[in-house]
Amino acid sequence: MSSSLGEIFKVTTFGESHGPAIGAVVDGMLPGIPLNEEIIQRDLDRRRPGQSKLTTARGEADRVEILSGVFEGVTTGTPVALLIRNCDSRSSDYGNLAELFRPGHADYTYFRKYGVRDYRGGGRSSGRETAARVAAGAVAKALLGQNGIDLFAYTAAVGSIRGVAVNRDCIEKNPVRAADPDAVEAMTSEILSAAKEHDSVGGIVECQILHVPAGLGEPVFDKLDALLGQAILSIGGIKGIEFGDGFAAASLRGSRNNDQMTPDGFATNHAGGILGGISSGAPIIFRAAVKPTPSVGLPQRTVTKENCATVCEIAGRHDPCLCPRIVPVVEAMAALVIADALLLSKRMD
Amino acid sequence: MSSSLGEIFKVTTFGESHGPAIGAVVDGMLPGIPLNEEIIQRDLDRRRPGQSKLTTARGEADRVEILSGVFEGVTTGTPVALLIRNCDSRSSDYGNLAELFRPGHADYTYFRKYGVRDYRGGGRSSGRETAARVAAGAVAKALLGQNGIDLFAYTAAVGSIRGVAVNRDCIEKNPVRAADPDAVEAMTSEILSAAKEHDSVGGIVECQILHVPAGLGEPVFDKLDALLGQAILSIGGIKGIEFGDGFAAASLRGSRNNDQMTPDGFATNHAGGILGGISSGAPIIFRAAVKPTPSVGLPQRTVTKENCATVCEIAGRHDPCLCPRIVPVVEAMAALVIADALLLSKRMD
Amino acid sequence: MSSSLGEIFKVTTFGESHGPAIGAVVDGMLPGIPLNEEIIQRDLDRRRPGQSKLTTARGEADRVEILSGVFEGVTTGTPVALLIRNCDSRSSDYGNLAELFRPGHADYTYFRKYGVRDYRGGGRSSGRETAARVAAGAVAKALLGQNGIDLFAYTAAVGSIRGVAVNRDCIEKNPVRAADPDAVEAMTSEILSAAKEHDSVGGIVECQILHVPAGLGEPVFDKLDALLGQAILSIGGIKGIEFGDGFAAASLRGSRNNDQMTPDGFATNHAGGILGGISSGAPIIFRAAVKPTPSVGLPQRTVTKENCATVCEIAGRHDPCLCPRIVPVVEAMAALVIADALLLSKRMD
Amino acid sequence: MSSSLGEIFKVTTFGESHGPAIGAVVDGMLPGIPLNEEIIQRDLDRRRPGQSKLTTARGEADRVEILSGVFEGVTTGTPVALLIRNCDSRSSDYGNLAELFRPGHADYTYFRKYGVRDYRGGGRSSGRETAARVAAGAVAKALLGQNGIDLFAYTAAVGSIRGVAVNRDCIEKNPVRAADPDAVEAMTSEILSAAKEHDSVGGIVECQILHVPAGLGEPVFDKLDALLGQAILSIGGIKGIEFGDGFAAASLRGSRNNDQMTPDGFATNHAGGILGGISSGAPIIFRAAVKPTPSVGLPQRTVTKENCATVCEIAGRHDPCLCPRIVPVVEAMAALVIADALLLSKRMD
Repeated sequence: MSSSLGEIFKVTTFGESHGPAIGAVVDGMLPGIPLNEEIIQRDLDRRRPGQSKLTTARGEADRVEILSGVFEGVTTGTPVALLIRNCDSRSSDYGNLAELFRPGHADYTYFRKYGVRDYRGGGRSSGRETAARVAAGAVAKALLGQNGIDLFAYTAAVGSIRGVAVNRDCIEKNPVRAADPDAVEAMTSEILSAAKEHDSVGGIVECQILHVPAGLGEPVFDKLDALLGQAILSIGGIKGIEFGDGFAAASLRGSRNNDQMTPDGFATNHAGGILGGISSGAPIIFRAAVKPTPSVGLPQRTVTKENCATVCEIAGRHDPCLCPRIVPVVEAMAALVIADALLLSKRMD
Repeated sequence: MSSSLGEIFKVTTFGESHGPAIGAVVDGMLPGIPLNEEIIQRDLDRRRPGQSKLTTARGEADRVEILSGVFEGVTTGTPVALLIRNCDSRSSDYGNLAELFRPGHADYTYFRKYGVRDYRGGGRSSGRETAARVAAGAVAKALLGQNGIDLFAYTAAVGSIRGVAVNRDCIEKNPVRAADPDAVEAMTSEILSAAKEHDSVGGIVECQILHVPAGLGEPVFDKLDALLGQAILSIGGIKGIEFGDGFAAASLRGSRNNDQMTPDGFATNHAGGILGGISSGAPIIFRAAVKPTPSVGLPQRTVTKENCATVCEIAGRHDPCLCPRIVPVVEAMAALVIADALLLSKRMD
Repeated sequence: MSSSLGEIFKVTTFGESHGPAIGAVVDGMLPGIPLNEEIIQRDLDRRRPGQSKLTTARGEADRVEILSGVFEGVTTGTPVALLIRNCDSRSSDYGNLAELFRPGHADYTYFRKYGVRDYRGGGRSSGRETAARVAAGAVAKALLGQNGIDLFAYTAAVGSIRGVAVNRDCIEKNPVRAADPDAVEAMTSEILSAAKEHDSVGGIVECQILHVPAGLGEPVFDKLDALLGQAILSIGGIKGIEFGDGFAAASLRGSRNNDQMTPDGFATNHAGGILGGISSGAPIIFRAAVKPTPSVGLPQRTVTKENCATVCEIAGRHDPCLCPRIVPVVEAMAALVIADALLLSKRMD
Repeated sequence: MSSSLGEIFKVTTFGESHGPAIGAVVDGMLPGIPLNEEIIQRDLDRRRPGQSKLTTARGEADRVEILSGVFEGVTTGTPVALLIRNCDSRSSDYGNLAELFRPGHADYTYFRKYGVRDYRGGGRSSGRETAARVAAGAVAKALLGQNGIDLFAYTAAVGSIRGVAVNRDCIEKNPVRAADPDAVEAMTSEILSAAKEHDSVGGIVECQILHVPAGLGEPVFDKLDALLGQAILSIGGIKGIEFGDGFAAASLRGSRNNDQMTPDGFATNHAGGILGGISSGAPIIFRAAVKPTPSVGLPQRTVTKENCATVCEIAGRHDPCLCPRIVPVVEAMAALVIADALLLSKRMD
């Protein structure tokens, strides 16, 4: 286990689905910054199950409690501990899965690593773990907000449906969290169609981080893109990340891919706001590949703990597409990385 | 700066192009493992400039010296320090670039971060820094070899030319380091054509890690794919990484993307050998997007340190495509991550 | 703030006195080890206020709740989160101290560092923070116990009264936690006499760690004594630490201080079980200097936040001597360090 | 092995006595600070063997070379790598000791840990390793000097001879590095007398750090005294550390030990400049217990690698007292810790 992230703005998370609670400790928060439970709850509600017809019907309220680090409405500089009780833990839903490994899940690898089978809905590998990330990310966002840094993510693709326009106002007004109003309907259909077939579908989430000052990131191993990469790839279900033009840059010529400079700034932003691992002052842009939810109702071949062949049909309530609820998780992880890089950079002021 | 990577198998690198030397300290190497300069030199020679008509004509010999950590031909468990003197440091090649920022380079961001302009060929942001990674990676490979773990990388695409077959024997026999014999000629032409036009071209490098035992990787933040992602994205010029089906998984259904299991193992490997951030025992497969070399001879708009518009034409000797020489760097970074994960996993034996 | 300790067996604590709760997250616990709330509660009860006439009369129940990491009575390898609600938080006791800095306390330095004055009984610098350490230490002890390692601490001196004999059975049977039955009465008198005079008294706590295998400790910076030193000195009120003969060795000759070796082991243990920062297999022995409780009722000169001279008389309920309740804290910190060193050493098995 | 220290001002050392070289990499140095080899050499010369009649006659020149991180006389913000070649490596001196474990040395514990016997004068556990610390410490001192922080150490006791006065000008003018002119002669005699008897003698080194701003140190685990404790105890031969009144505080009453405050500052400095783990602005004062050099010529009982009883008589050239040469090592370690704490504190500016 390695449940801590960050150098001097450090988050530690804990908790399993179906245990008593999950939560996070944010160590290194600056003192004197306004913070309360409502601010954090706002992001948690965006990740909450049961928020629309596109997500699982499970009804976790996900109420956060601040246990420490805030006094009289502002942070004190001491660790901010955040607690979210697990309410709806119907582990009976999973009872029939206790003896087999669900394809595409971490059941098998956790069992091989730890030798202990926590069959209650995935335990620590459950998507539920990301609620703690979102809560911690809200603390990071409070810090970034004080420094004028702003970020947002959105669903850029569902299956083969890709958004084109980026309209920030659109995002929270549709259940897909798409940024392109013209793609919302097709994306919604794609998700509902997968659900109807007891299947699931993947997608792409894009994130933009605005007003990051030039100079963040610590070469050569803690480059800003390297740490964003780690943070985003640590989210369950993410299979790839690319910055700026990303994989498309592989087929470009250098003369076309370089962002030429003018006295008014960069003429283009193929690099996605990061050069040599350090922020350039241009918007940071990255995309993450989200795999289709592994929990599908269709029958799949698998094996039992005793390595006997069997068939798995997952009956529980699951998201047919991870994208809508993973959007705030991507934001949270990006915020945690930028907050740490920002504080680190202050040593040189 | 953050020049260290790894938790208990830790590498620290140092050095700039055109300074006296570069090198690495590998701390946490197990004792009793055969190691000598020849083993390390072999990988350095694969990264060396001037090795073929596809690479820069600069002629650094890149001879490594082991300064510590090895006694009577085996490691002692103390830090292995590796030194590579810089020989061919014609900084005059860069003299005319001292006052401007090269497009696509880290000149601008380093200057914004550190306020000191080391104009001698990029300083710490030079590709030369990766020689230290390769040397350290060879130490990691020696450790992995003792544990039966094997890995190799190759050029999977140059520009829009993609390899299909993976023939490991082919890789070191062609200057592109392509794994598909049928693609070598087209890839070579693509590179030479870019060079002839005073331009450069990008590509994709793929890596396979074989015989990794199930159970490596430390959720939830130090998942194996997250740490490989950090390590690979920390290489200059890499703009994206994907595991298994990666971005292609975004358009798949779950029933198609899940790797079903049989008593003989996984039926497919869409996941690329990692589930829930932990190795599954299947081969680990990832791809990295390599941007076109930013140093191109064509004229490009840029600005001086005083933010005045100017034009930049880079005359130096540069690789028209980074892929052939980045292959051993990708292997080195992967080896460092797997070595650390392997040692961490032993705490549970 | 830096509220995490340990490399691969890592504890993170949170919480202030007079906030809602304190607690700890223990990351890196091995799976499959029996653990429950009773095991942890046992050590918490030894640290609890109000346990005898020698300690403060405050009545915190200090009930621990395990929030994660344990399933069906054994650890799962995921983070063990521990929660202790603050019950008796009469911050009114401190009301009159809100505007001044208590001599010998961290009020002044916290204010200078964070600029936020949490006047409620010391906040994060309160001795209450050590309850989280004790809870986490109990998890470490469970791990050590499975590996045959055993440790105990005791009051070796109160003021100028020094114990001589070390009778382990005696320790928990007297309120001083002295190991020398012949010193209990004098030590008790010393503490009560200080209390009666509205004053406090210091002391020395000694710790023995038994059956530590040879080979633990990571030179050159994470030597076992160096990390024990950090851990023990991080406890509020500790002003020094020495190993084996410690400061007395300064006046010895080498021929007298060296532990000569025989085929049956070391002939003496002047080194206190650690040579070159690595455990030798002999018992590890160290002593910690405990300062007199800074909260005394006698009038003391101090200043207000506005730097005006004033007089401070502390009326609250405070321990006249920290030693009896710091004993389990010392054990906890030692256990955390040894658990981490033990897991690290396994990489070489 | 754990050869790195520090969070954002981080030093990594490498090298064994009798190997090709030792050295250090200092990562996190601020850019723009004047640095050259002379500055570093000055401190190395204070640690150098053969500098007086009180030290070993070995004649290592200990010339440092800066390999990176400095350009045109100032630091660039990239890692500062420092190399010191081993010149006088007469390993023949140690030939007869290859098969046995020297009492009081780390021979036995290194062998138990690593299973590899580097018999050449202690290898990594040799005092020679501290030259790399001194070189790195000189870089830290350059950073501190720019911030007005100043520190110095001196021999406060040799055997039972204790210095009283602290005259800073005296220190570098006598071979003991005593700060009390009246104690120099007795201390010198004590050392020479031990040497004449083929024995050695211990002592105490005291360190003062001046003009440290209030607010450095990171509770609760990286308190300033905790990290100084780790750093100093990581020096070979140090068996204890105490801050301010230290162990003497154990026998004091609180009313006597508290430093009362006045509008002009603290009335006393029993705390040694640190309260609650945070610097108070008063001078930081600590003392370290130095054990007698374990290498003595007198015959000592020991065992061979095969655990057979034998007798050890050490013929080599060794310091009869470690104090004079450990003084710059103590300074270096203190400087490294304060530099890191200083940079960390800047995040809150």
